[in-house]
Amino acid sequence: MNVLYALDLLGTAAFAASGALAGIQRRMDLLGVVILGVVTAVGGGTLRDVLLGSIPPFCFKDETYFYLSIGVALAVFFFHRSLNFLHRPLLYFDALGLGTFLVIGTGKALAYDAGFLVAVMMGVMTATAGGLVRDVLSDQVPFILQKEVYATACIFGGIVYYILYRVGLPDSTTAVIAALVVIVIRIVAIHRKWSLPIAKVD
Amino acid sequence: MNVLYALDLLGTAAFAASGALAGIQRRMDLLGVVILGVVTAVGGGTLRDVLLGSIPPFCFKDETYFYLSIGVALAVFFFHRSLNFLHRPLLYFDALGLGTFLVIGTGKALAYDAGFLVAVMMGVMTATAGGLVRDVLSDQVPFILQKEVYATACIFGGIVYYILYRVGLPDSTTAVIAALVVIVIRIVAIHRKWSLPIAKVD
Amino acid sequence: MNVLYALDLLGTAAFAASGALAGIQRRMDLLGVVILGVVTAVGGGTLRDVLLGSIPPFCFKDETYFYLSIGVALAVFFFHRSLNFLHRPLLYFDALGLGTFLVIGTGKALAYDAGFLVAVMMGVMTATAGGLVRDVLSDQVPFILQKEVYATACIFGGIVYYILYRVGLPDSTTAVIAALVVIVIRIVAIHRKWSLPIAKVD
Repeated sequence: MNVLYALDLLGTAAFAASGALAGIQRRMDLLGVVILGVVTAVGGGTLRDVLLGSIPPFCFKDETYFYLSIGVALAVFFFHRSLNFLHRPLLYFDALGLGTFLVIGTGKALAYDAGFLVAVMMGVMTATAGGLVRDVLSDQVPFILQKEVYATACIFGGIVYYILYRVGLPDSTTAVIAALVVIVIRIVAIHRKWSLPIAKVD
Repeated sequence: MNVLYALDLLGTAAFAASGALAGIQRRMDLLGVVILGVVTAVGGGTLRDVLLGSIPPFCFKDETYFYLSIGVALAVFFFHRSLNFLHRPLLYFDALGLGTFLVIGTGKALAYDAGFLVAVMMGVMTATAGGLVRDVLSDQVPFILQKEVYATACIFGGIVYYILYRVGLPDSTTAVIAALVVIVIRIVAIHRKWSLPIAKVD
Repeated sequence: MNVLYALDLLGTAAFAASGALAGIQRRMDLLGVVILGVVTAVGGGTLRDVLLGSIPPFCFKDETYFYLSIGVALAVFFFHRSLNFLHRPLLYFDALGLGTFLVIGTGKALAYDAGFLVAVMMGVMTATAGGLVRDVLSDQVPFILQKEVYATACIFGGIVYYILYRVGLPDSTTAVIAALVVIVIRIVAIHRKWSLPIAKVD
């Protein structure tokens, strides 16, 4: 469980960094950059907890998530030009966060007796809703609704999680395998530039 | 009650179709189209349930809503060019969904002891908030905030519902009359191109 | 406590006016202007109550907030050209609302056993989230994320509130001082045109 918590914090940091960078690109001020970093990092899990009825949400019970994402956003704000060498690793940390958040979200939904679709959706929401709010606040069509394999990787991970959970594997094994499914699909998708189809219009 | 459930599903399907079409128009990918369809279909009722404290929300307890809206969004994605003949009927199904959702939302709020304004607003929110989120995710000023008689039809229906409810009519009679008020106003508004006033600016 | 309620209503009216004005500027219709006014006025407190688990939210228990903000939005819609002389006072009422909402939000979070960061954030959210939703619905990058000392004034007020609360001052004294901190910073910021830094980009 301690490993999952460590991965969770690493993912939180990666998501906060992506939110802060989006804020900087949109020429937001210091506070805007911090807010965008925090919302991107904890938004998905908070929305999940509101819908599952796990109130107050996870980040209210453990303020570490807030201190961490605020700290990361501040670091990005002040040092982002010296941190360019982190651009590539950040994509991998982000994929790692994606897998971790999916596993946490799906697992929590199942602990709340969710059915198949809801369990998968809560996992996907945990992993992607923060980024979606980030894009809405940046006045853009959300990234995950457009042409890239991102939430799709989470869907496959969520389905795998649900099957292994029903099969009765130990929770930790289930979590590791499902997270790896997400991470591997996401990283291969980046390298191969996979994308989903767009509907034909005349 | 079975009739109401059937109308509810019909409305859900119509709203999912409108969300999916918006996604296609914004050139979203397959997953984006599905997400937009689902959010449009269940977003209003989910928000209502969060505010009333009816957690988990209705669509978590009965996954039919999710399967239906995902199915409709997929059908729209793959066959939307063959489904052009449905364009006109869709406007009527949408009006029907509007009336049904208004009745369900206002009725549920009253069951939770809401006052007059809150009861009407929860009905209007159930019927229109999904479309509002659809437009925000499409990076547009929400349709219902602009020049058309759409949410307005719901407001009249909600007021009628509240009065009949207080008068003490049977629930089913109240529901049918209020839904008809919404549907008739909406359809007449489409045909007559009714619109609300805009404030004068210098 | 009656003074706090009076200030709360004054702030609600000021926020409703700012929302209604934004709707008029975006050429929304009558209903759109009212919705934007209401959402701006009660949105922050409602989101706070959802996250703290205080359901139904404050404005569902006391519909005065709804009647007031709808009334103000209607007045702004019909008479906004005759109300130009209120433009300047409105900025001060808005600052007053900012301080009042911060105090109410932080106080309520502490009553729900929130830690330091959450208490401050709930105060800031109460005061600013309504305006943020207003801007998202107007299809704009939210004002508070950009170059102005607005939410920043709330952060200072929230920190002061937390310290005085821990020191053990009477609630009313704590509230008055913290609200004044917000109001004074905000008003000075308007006059001096203070702003927060923006990150350097190459």
